[in-house]
Amino acid sequence: MRLDKLETPCLILDRVKLAANIAALHARLKRLGVNLRPHGKTAKNYDVLRMALADQAGGITVSTLKEAEYYFEHGIVDIVYAVGIAPVKLDRIAALIKKGARLSVILDSLAQARSMAKRARMHNILIPALIELDCDGHRSGITADDPLLVEIGRFLHTNAHTALAGVLTHAGESYNCRSIDAIRALADTERDTAVHCAAKLHRHDLPCPAVSVGSTPTANFARDLSGVTEVRAGVFMFYDLVMAGLGVCALEDIAVSVLGSVIGHQPKRGWIITDAGWMALSRDRGTTAQAIDQGYGRVGDITGVPLGDLIVTGANQEHGIVARRAGSTTPGPHLAVGDMLRILPNHACATGAMHDRYHVVDGGLEIVDVWPRINGW
Amino acid sequence: MRLDKLETPCLILDRVKLAANIAALHARLKRLGVNLRPHGKTAKNYDVLRMALADQAGGITVSTLKEAEYYFEHGIVDIVYAVGIAPVKLDRIAALIKKGARLSVILDSLAQARSMAKRARMHNILIPALIELDCDGHRSGITADDPLLVEIGRFLHTNAHTALAGVLTHAGESYNCRSIDAIRALADTERDTAVHCAAKLHRHDLPCPAVSVGSTPTANFARDLSGVTEVRAGVFMFYDLVMAGLGVCALEDIAVSVLGSVIGHQPKRGWIITDAGWMALSRDRGTTAQAIDQGYGRVGDITGVPLGDLIVTGANQEHGIVARRAGSTTPGPHLAVGDMLRILPNHACATGAMHDRYHVVDGGLEIVDVWPRINGW
Repeated sequence: MRLDKLETPCLILDRVKLAANIAALHARLKRLGVNLRPHGKTAKNYDVLRMALADQAGGITVSTLKEAEYYFEHGIVDIVYAVGIAPVKLDRIAALIKKGARLSVILDSLAQARSMAKRARMHNILIPALIELDCDGHRSGITADDPLLVEIGRFLHTNAHTALAGVLTHAGESYNCRSIDAIRALADTERDTAVHCAAKLHRHDLPCPAVSVGSTPTANFARDLSGVTEVRAGVFMFYDLVMAGLGVCALEDIAVSVLGSVIGHQPKRGWIITDAGWMALSRDRGTTAQAIDQGYGRVGDITGVPLGDLIVTGANQEHGIVARRAGSTTPGPHLAVGDMLRILPNHACATGAMHDRYHVVDGGLEIVDVWPRINGW
Repeated sequence: MRLDKLETPCLILDRVKLAANIAALHARLKRLGVNLRPHGKTAKNYDVLRMALADQAGGITVSTLKEAEYYFEHGIVDIVYAVGIAPVKLDRIAALIKKGARLSVILDSLAQARSMAKRARMHNILIPALIELDCDGHRSGITADDPLLVEIGRFLHTNAHTALAGVLTHAGESYNCRSIDAIRALADTERDTAVHCAAKLHRHDLPCPAVSVGSTPTANFARDLSGVTEVRAGVFMFYDLVMAGLGVCALEDIAVSVLGSVIGHQPKRGWIITDAGWMALSRDRGTTAQAIDQGYGRVGDITGVPLGDLIVTGANQEHGIVARRAGSTTPGPHLAVGDMLRILPNHACATGAMHDRYHVVDGGLEIVDVWPRINGW
């Protein structure tokens, strides 16, 4: 079947671009001598993660236990659940470990370590945990100078039902960088924070097998990852307008798009109305603060080629308003009711989350496969 | 089971508030002598729509064909699909009509009417359509002075496979009003536009059985709906922070909330980290332009009572950053890892869309039912 027979709105994934994005980051990290631990939160699909793992033995990262269970059912055993552990989730984690998953959690407080140890003892299992580090003030984690690092490390290492699996940090602020130099500097800080804390644990006779860093921007611009054992990244598989705005990828690298139909016009206002509203695109406006604001998405024709300066300037639940970017002098194309458009998303994770499947193409218009997405928790 | 045993994040629906919200709008519209046609796009659940229909015979509004099919399977026959019809959707519409649905579509161009007539003839059915009117420059529809009204009306009325079912308008700009007086004025314009166009069709010997208006704000503040046959509204069942900011409801009326767990702290920054990120709350920032910006949501304790000035100031995919509103002098409460919070959403439709079920409570903490939600198209 071809794209023009699909009911709109729906999500399109170009496998040729996906494969190229994956190959490029693998090659880059290989040169830096570090393993990739792909993040399953962007794709939420095993076919994509299998490609992202390539032929390496390593494991993956997840953001929900539903992802952990899904990828484990598909044979991926080595999983880091990279959201600070909440007590209410420990029973599901225990169940996965009992089934044979090599699942690690992350935490940044003694309270979490203690409640985890208690529950692990109840289940008579051992739960490995990485200590989450804050390298950029973005959200969670302890800073490199915090004495808690060694306290938590010692607790995890000496308790019979927990293990100290390493340290982990995420330079989330890299999404807000204004230049490649700023991303490079943050990649250095991300690495330094993790390597410094690993050394500190070692000085206190504590183990630190994993030294885990990562975000798509820093993974793409880090120059030296000495001392790091693995890089986590997810968005790089698909890329998106936020990443293009940062200079991390080109527009042509973006592998996901939303297919929509023209359903009307407001000629006096220069609007084209489509059936791809925020329910299909998400409410993400991640390019607002960038040099080029892409609205709710950049608009291309059915083959994905951008149509002049057309962006989605407004979105209601099931309506997208397409118009020329403010200040544009490029004339807009004529589009008829029923014409189909491919809209590049601001944020691949957020747009993906609005859909339950990918319609896969290999660069052309023919749908070669349909891959599911697992949302929820 | 009680709320504190649920895995977070998840969506909570208070049936007591839901019932009160529904009863209030029914009573209001009854006084105005007009029927309610509840919109199924907010709840996307039959149990809620059954309550919203109360004991009246009328039908519902939907925003997707998936909603139409789902509600029809549950016995609701009279359905208006209120998104401008795209050619690629006509076969599914035909299938519903053949099964016995009294489904109407909307359109605002002759191109749509012609492609619809062609497909209806192919299926040997009759498709009724309402002409969409633009009363406020918000998105789709023709303006009241546009000669297209009569042209489209005549086409629909005279073609053997289409019927002119009436006119429909939606005052979407009511969400951006800054005062109750502005909402009242817009409700007048919404009514005047629809009634004026119905009269114009009548003057041209064309029928106009339905004169359909509606948005939650205008439905709540319209003073006179003479000439209108039905009011459409959906958000009113749940309400949300955008509606509270507009003065359309009180905070206490909001029937949906997201349950999250505290997973950490950044004491130096005054942050509480929760597992309710944008994946649970949505990326909707609808209160940004209002007098009180609620961030990604207003934070309450597990019973739903607001906790001082706490809001969700930032959101990542599976992390919410909770902090006091800028400028707040109310001290924040102490919250421990594992404590649960109820977060009121900016926009009930968008937050609902991130979840596949409601955990239903009757004002308390006991879960009395679990209701599904149908997302997608």
